[in-house]
Amino acid sequence: MYYPEPITKLIDSFSKLPGIGPKTAARLAFFVLNMKEDDVLNFANALVSAKRELSHCSVCGHITDQDPCAICTDTSRDGSLICVVQDPKDVIAMEKMKEFHGKYHVLHGAISPMDGIGPEDINVPDLINRLKDEEVEELILATNPNIEGEATAMYISRLVKPSGIRTTRIAHGLPVGGDLEYADEVTLSKALEGRRDV
Amino acid sequence: MYYPEPITKLIDSFSKLPGIGPKTAARLAFFVLNMKEDDVLNFANALVSAKRELSHCSVCGHITDQDPCAICTDTSRDGSLICVVQDPKDVIAMEKMKEFHGKYHVLHGAISPMDGIGPEDINVPDLINRLKDEEVEELILATNPNIEGEATAMYISRLVKPSGIRTTRIAHGLPVGGDLEYADEVTLSKALEGRRDV
Repeated sequence: MYYPEPITKLIDSFSKLPGIGPKTAARLAFFVLNMKEDDVLNFANALVSAKRELSHCSVCGHITDQDPCAICTDTSRDGSLICVVQDPKDVIAMEKMKEFHGKYHVLHGAISPMDGIGPEDINVPDLINRLKDEEVEELILATNPNIEGEATAMYISRLVKPSGIRTTRIAHGLPVGGDLEYADEVTLSKALEGRRDV
Repeated sequence: MYYPEPITKLIDSFSKLPGIGPKTAARLAFFVLNMKEDDVLNFANALVSAKRELSHCSVCGHITDQDPCAICTDTSRDGSLICVVQDPKDVIAMEKMKEFHGKYHVLHGAISPMDGIGPEDINVPDLINRLKDEEVEELILATNPNIEGEATAMYISRLVKPSGIRTTRIAHGLPVGGDLEYADEVTLSKALEGRRDV
């Protein structure tokens, strides 16, 4: 009975969030007590409506509050170019760049035999159907540059290539602002392999 | 329009919490999307009920969902001993120790002329009234060991002493598990000053 019950419950709820331990949870809970009531109500509503109103777009799998999502229904975007990513957050990262004007396909994961995740468990079948129905010229594989992401990109590439659609993989190399001296061997080797004429 | 609106609102709400920047807020918001609906509803309810049901105890100023609070109404506790702290969280810290069986008085701040906070702005007048009404033998001043906390302790001590109530200050010294070598001069000087026969 250290804390009154309502605050214990709030601390428990905060503790369930990733990266928030009991001390931080208590700090956040006490902060909430001193917030304006309106702000607290907005917070509570935002939680519930984010959970209830958002779903996955039936076309591309991105999170959305309308179906199909705003990107899929945007006729100014180039439907012949599809960028395949693992996660809705990756779509956001691409959109922040403001240079890609094609559409997306969100896999919600990557192939990982170690974890028992095969192509059927991620959004691959939907992608294949999409490629049959839509006129797609290029598929950009932008899965993460790690083992699972590479395996997923390889798998999709082999599956799609016979149909004549161009499949590309985003470049590996040194990040801008990086330092050659501190680059790991694999990245450096990829950077050398992917060198281009200037 | 990077994110659908419901998630933007949720990210905004998380961003208002202390120590949570936009990146962490986005991570937490996406985590909420993958939580069970029941857990999200409990979280939202916990927020609202913590804000609505909790108030400050009219006797001691501690946060509580009943008035007077569970500590003030606990007849097994020694009412002749009052521990004065700055913050409700300090009460929790004391209670976790499980060795103090008196009652508390929460000031909700400390005297700080720099910030324009005087004795009237914190819970001091209520404390003085309490000392008149209740039979108090000892007042333990457990404000924080910094300038504001010391000033507050000094002020209350001078105010209360003429009435014959014993006023004590918690000890300053080396924290248990600490290292003499790394102790700062002020703490070391206080530790020496407060030495006791063994």
